Amino acid sequence: MIVNLVLDGNMHITATESNGHKTYFDTVPEVGGENTAAAPMVVMLQAMAGCSMMDVAAILRKKRKTITELKMEVEGLRADKHPKVYTKVHLKYTLVSPDAEQKDLDRSIELSQNTYCGASAMFKQSGCEVTYEGILINQ
Amino acid sequence: MIVNLVLDGNMHITATESNGHKTYFDTVPEVGGENTAAAPMVVMLQAMAGCSMMDVAAILRKKRKTITELKMEVEGLRADKHPKVYTKVHLKYTLVSPDAEQKDLDRSIELSQNTYCGASAMFKQSGCEVTYEGILINQ
Repeated sequence: MIVNLVLDGNMHITATESNGHKTYFDTVPEVGGENTAAAPMVVMLQAMAGCSMMDVAAILRKKRKTITELKMEVEGLRADKHPKVYTKVHLKYTLVSPDAEQKDLDRSIELSQNTYCGASAMFKQSGCEVTYEGILINQ
Repeated sequence: MIVNLVLDGNMHITATESNGHKTYFDTVPEVGGENTAAAPMVVMLQAMAGCSMMDVAAILRKKRKTITELKMEVEGLRADKHPKVYTKVHLKYTLVSPDAEQKDLDRSIELSQNTYCGASAMFKQSGCEVTYEGILINQ
């Protein structure tokens, strides 16, 4: 896979991939940015969570469960010193569904976290502690 | 740091962070997506490169070198089996500058790759082989 990036602002970056989709990065003025887009390390955490969220959605659908709403709140802690790697990440998945049971949500998350999600696996392999919880709202 | 994600399409995800900036993810129809945005694992690679690109830009500016253009081409290889982690990444930085020397570019990349870039450090710590080269165009 090949991706391309261009610095097209003080710190603003436009990244493109093979389908032509664009992703934008910037940073805060304190480090020279103009705060027009999310910072790379923030997006890295979002990408990791998004990777797992797609697994969970796909697995729930395979189980023929209805996804009325699926949300995640993700908390990441980084090292104080350079390189400021993520040291702890907590993933909170919230599913609103009229027919899924807690075990369906839990199993989907476990399958993603332990088998499918390449991004989560990389975070863990790097030494980051990754924890998670699934909250089911049956309605 | 806290980020939030919402599944707001078949596989489309909108991620937000504390400044309100949004990042979008989707995937190809083969796995249930609608191909409206880059996939999470692609964005993860872009975020890693973007993190390093900002370091390089900041270091070159500290050295008072002119950045006429700064681009990156990034190639990532992933494992065949789940979890499909990145196993090899090559980062090609291209700088157009009338006053930077090759050693300025090389030193900037090395400082990013060996000291500052948290995302690159996580890739390496996970077991991914990360290589790089800097191409300088003096004009």
